[in-house]
Amino acid sequence: MADTPVNRTAHPFDKARLEALLNRRFFYAPAFEIYGGIAGLYDYGPPGSSLQSNIITEWRKHFIIEEHMLELDTTIMTPSPVFETSGHVARFADWMVKDVKTGEVLRADHLVKNVLSARLESDKEARGLAAQPLPEDEKAKKKVKKDKTKAALVQLPDEVAAEYERILAQLDNYSGPELGELCRKYKITNPETDNEVSEPQLFNLMFASSIGPTGQHPGYLRPETAQGHFLNFSRLLEFNNGRVPFASAQIGRSFRNEISPRAGLLRVREFTMAEIEHYVDPEDKRHARFSEVRDVVLDLLDRHVQVSGSTRTTKMPVGEAVEQGIIANETLGYFIARIYLFLVKVGINPARLRFRQHMKNEMAHYATDCWDAEIENSTGWTECVGCADRAAFDLSVHSARTGHPLIVRQALKEPIVMEKEVPEFNKKMLGKTFGRDSAVIQGIVGEMDEAHLLRLKGELAQGAAKIVSSDGREFTLSPDLLTIERKTLKQSIREFTPNVIEPSFGLGRILYTLLEHSFWSREQDVERGVLSLPTVVAPTKVLIVPLSAKEEFSPLVQEVSLKLRRAGVYSRVDDSNTSIGKRYARNDELGTPFGLTLDFASLQNRTMTLRERDTTGQLIGPIDEVIATVIELVNGNIDWAEACQRLPAYEGVQAVE
Amino acid sequence: MADTPVNRTAHPFDKARLEALLNRRFFYAPAFEIYGGIAGLYDYGPPGSSLQSNIITEWRKHFIIEEHMLELDTTIMTPSPVFETSGHVARFADWMVKDVKTGEVLRADHLVKNVLSARLESDKEARGLAAQPLPEDEKAKKKVKKDKTKAALVQLPDEVAAEYERILAQLDNYSGPELGELCRKYKITNPETDNEVSEPQLFNLMFASSIGPTGQHPGYLRPETAQGHFLNFSRLLEFNNGRVPFASAQIGRSFRNEISPRAGLLRVREFTMAEIEHYVDPEDKRHARFSEVRDVVLDLLDRHVQVSGSTRTTKMPVGEAVEQGIIANETLGYFIARIYLFLVKVGINPARLRFRQHMKNEMAHYATDCWDAEIENSTGWTECVGCADRAAFDLSVHSARTGHPLIVRQALKEPIVMEKEVPEFNKKMLGKTFGRDSAVIQGIVGEMDEAHLLRLKGELAQGAAKIVSSDGREFTLSPDLLTIERKTLKQSIREFTPNVIEPSFGLGRILYTLLEHSFWSREQDVERGVLSLPTVVAPTKVLIVPLSAKEEFSPLVQEVSLKLRRAGVYSRVDDSNTSIGKRYARNDELGTPFGLTLDFASLQNRTMTLRERDTTGQLIGPIDEVIATVIELVNGNIDWAEACQRLPAYEGVQAVE
Repeated sequence: MADTPVNRTAHPFDKARLEALLNRRFFYAPAFEIYGGIAGLYDYGPPGSSLQSNIITEWRKHFIIEEHMLELDTTIMTPSPVFETSGHVARFADWMVKDVKTGEVLRADHLVKNVLSARLESDKEARGLAAQPLPEDEKAKKKVKKDKTKAALVQLPDEVAAEYERILAQLDNYSGPELGELCRKYKITNPETDNEVSEPQLFNLMFASSIGPTGQHPGYLRPETAQGHFLNFSRLLEFNNGRVPFASAQIGRSFRNEISPRAGLLRVREFTMAEIEHYVDPEDKRHARFSEVRDVVLDLLDRHVQVSGSTRTTKMPVGEAVEQGIIANETLGYFIARIYLFLVKVGINPARLRFRQHMKNEMAHYATDCWDAEIENSTGWTECVGCADRAAFDLSVHSARTGHPLIVRQALKEPIVMEKEVPEFNKKMLGKTFGRDSAVIQGIVGEMDEAHLLRLKGELAQGAAKIVSSDGREFTLSPDLLTIERKTLKQSIREFTPNVIEPSFGLGRILYTLLEHSFWSREQDVERGVLSLPTVVAPTKVLIVPLSAKEEFSPLVQEVSLKLRRAGVYSRVDDSNTSIGKRYARNDELGTPFGLTLDFASLQNRTMTLRERDTTGQLIGPIDEVIATVIELVNGNIDWAEACQRLPAYEGVQAVE
Repeated sequence: MADTPVNRTAHPFDKARLEALLNRRFFYAPAFEIYGGIAGLYDYGPPGSSLQSNIITEWRKHFIIEEHMLELDTTIMTPSPVFETSGHVARFADWMVKDVKTGEVLRADHLVKNVLSARLESDKEARGLAAQPLPEDEKAKKKVKKDKTKAALVQLPDEVAAEYERILAQLDNYSGPELGELCRKYKITNPETDNEVSEPQLFNLMFASSIGPTGQHPGYLRPETAQGHFLNFSRLLEFNNGRVPFASAQIGRSFRNEISPRAGLLRVREFTMAEIEHYVDPEDKRHARFSEVRDVVLDLLDRHVQVSGSTRTTKMPVGEAVEQGIIANETLGYFIARIYLFLVKVGINPARLRFRQHMKNEMAHYATDCWDAEIENSTGWTECVGCADRAAFDLSVHSARTGHPLIVRQALKEPIVMEKEVPEFNKKMLGKTFGRDSAVIQGIVGEMDEAHLLRLKGELAQGAAKIVSSDGREFTLSPDLLTIERKTLKQSIREFTPNVIEPSFGLGRILYTLLEHSFWSREQDVERGVLSLPTVVAPTKVLIVPLSAKEEFSPLVQEVSLKLRRAGVYSRVDDSNTSIGKRYARNDELGTPFGLTLDFASLQNRTMTLRERDTTGQLIGPIDEVIATVIELVNGNIDWAEACQRLPAYEGVQAVE
């Protein structure tokens, strides 16, 4: 079923060539380019949009359809109270520092990372330990970069180098003041100007606006789609006939006003996310389909290893990781494994995919466990998917703020009978004695747990009990105002706030990394790259190449094109005025897996050749047989090796490469 | 291929019932509902998202794939200069009035429309002319509405009623001051308070924000996707090998800060659009495929009819409308016909679909022609698609502002040889004589047309020529400073700014109107509605209904579900604890066209029944035959009548309705 493996050993990865290709073929480009562009905003051109849309289609199949998730499409523009409650207004922020002279703004953690990494690299080179010999142009580029950051080759004392490594391994664990301290301690300055930087300050990453003609509703653009799920929880639960577990899913645009985005599609201010919120009984986080993924082997980097200053991963089946308590529960483990399977299916190299657990300071305070799917690319390991157990936090806070219960009510098969201390007030007398404060008093007692009530009961038995309000006032209660008695209660409904497991995908990061993992060059044509995208996500599946744009080929082109379209296989025609080999090379750059050539033999004998992108192998056969074969290939029912069994190889005299 | 026609005559359309259904089954709901909601913002629940996503899939097939359009996915957050150039900062605004006492803000044109319409309705009732007898509950509702707007039944003088009709027919043609005048002349006040309203003021409809940590880039959320196409024109043209005509297409979110949105999905502040920009040679607006649509008959309401105060449409084949010059050109006509075909395909009732031409004041000043596809629903005729010939406006203004040429360069098959008057300056002497002003002088002469140059040439022949700058200064030129000669020039490249034909779809409006057109109730069950959505857009295609949730049905349910999924047909299972009839009724509300029942006969004989939503007819057969039939039905290869030829009717003793 898989595509034929590709031999990509011909040339090492060349980022500059890939970027030139992506720009030239308009996979994506800086938005507002003719206006000078704005950092962190990109437009996707035809092949980029198509690749993105195919990744989304696979995501929808792999998650939403396969698991009967409830899909949502919620609003981006969000009134402020929602994000006040969720904590985003107070805490969705990064630490920024300013160049004290130029005022340039930098993200504090990125500054520390870039400067210390550059020093370590310089140290390694100074020690003659540069990991691998680099090709000349790479070296040249590194040199330029180094000149720019003004770091001459400097060897560090061993203990300093070790200290830098330790800091970098747990960089996400530092607070703002700690980052400031690091800057002072290690004399970290703005690499562009060598000026000192200010103390780190928080900068909120949400774009602000206001809703309505009189500005009466301050609002923000959502930085994630999640709140749209939570606010609709009651409706979703009802749609699911009141049962948990179930999941909602949403694919949509989100916005983050990044401080100084500079990493192409990896750090952007506007992006498409795909998020799942899976609602589960907090007392039962098993997953019905866990057995299907138990044996999936993952590269895990747990929090203990990171805090010890290392980034060494452990290979382990997800079943074992859950049994050992490394991953907190089955449902979290299930989704981590499903994320792995999805990423590999769309073409991510599994050898460059790891799951990293959040460290304690890094994780939101309410989360019980959180793992990032990190994928290695030319900039290092990049978080592409997060998978967190958010516990009951979100539903609880929105419920508390709005008074709308976001809970599950479950009929108990057998009612629970229990004994409980129950307080009862003489309300009339309480009112007379305490006036307005009687509500306060009832509130305090109402919220007491069993132990408190028992203590109060004991004091009342001795004649009087004292209680204290949150603002420090004391009230003395007598047994004629309050009695506490043990009663037998029957409970037939269980109410609970479900916990939420949240897999959250940054589609742009996956898309870019996939392009890096798919890119290579053939030995015989270094200039032209090849994108070996899996057929399932390739922007165009089949290229139809008539020998020329002449009228005589037109009926055949239309026939082939129509037959493919009827089978749901979308093709493009390239009848431009250049050699067939050049047209194929151009479409290798677009990742088109199959090509069909129509030449004079097609006109005379109704034969057609079929070419495979990665091997450049060619087969020949009657037009309808070739069409049937390419449809099977595109649908993943056969692979290229099987296609080669069906049709004879093409060894025609016209070399078309 | 079409679905079986539905008999929906049982009950008149009941909007309150439809709205209750859409809310109860979570097609969509007010966003941030538990926070009290915000007018004009809605979330789509599972059936609504699925319906929207199916409409988008059909749109993509009908337009993008069918016409090989270049798809884009561009940025929403847009820096201010882009919208300054496009004219949105200055002119993308509505006229608003304020209640002079409460400060409530109202949209001026809506106020005039609502008040005059209410008066006309009251007039009609007073005359005993209410168009049709209304059922009791409708009358009651009307009465409530009337009480609220405080309009008692008042008969208008004939000439006033005629005047109101005339105003309403051309409401979109009034400027702000004219709307203010109407308010004064006809004593139009805020219907809620009866207070006077202020003079109309412009309110810009774009949401404002700023980009970057220091607020250095003021930005707006795009109110349409179009600018994202235009800014990428050069890249798109290159992707298309430099050839026109071609089209770009984009589906995405846009934002408009509406003044007082109150019409559900018909007027919202955030919405999904689908836009096409078709780039065409301004000298050749024919369309290669026009012959395919020439005979499509449309209901047209042209601008002359509207200005005359009427809204009477004319039925006409689009070919005739283009020939007669009613529609400006073939390409515009082609798209209008394609829009018609798309809307009817997804389920819009063609009898309630018309194309209305913009009147002169209504149309953007640069547009040469513009038609709206208007669909009738319970609120009247609603613009759902716009189709405008925007001429060269957008590309020209962005090109002028940025200096980046947004043009097509076409190699001429035969170079054009022409004679032309060519001015030539003695630049050295010109500089000495006029200093800095010499550039101004060269500019003036450089922009002169043939006639001007000839006049200047004549003056020079008489010794001296005078020219005047735009600021009124006069310069006298002598023959030693400037000579004008007739020369033969050869032009082998033709450069031009393409014109843009823009079909622009509001998907939410189409979706809501489609729901209205699809909704009806059965005679025997008025309470439960049916949504007769075409299979192609129905949220779920097939419902699998096992007799009960018992374990014994589970293997069969899984078998059927898997076989459908393999064929690309997505089904849902309803094994909830209620009668099969109720479960079907519930899924009629969701518009699910087909149902499969698994009962004890299925276990014993491997038979299954197939039910059709609109007729409630049932067929029975061996499981695999029924699956094959339902797949053909869903794919549109056969219709229900044909299915009835294939499988015997089910007349089982267990009535399942």
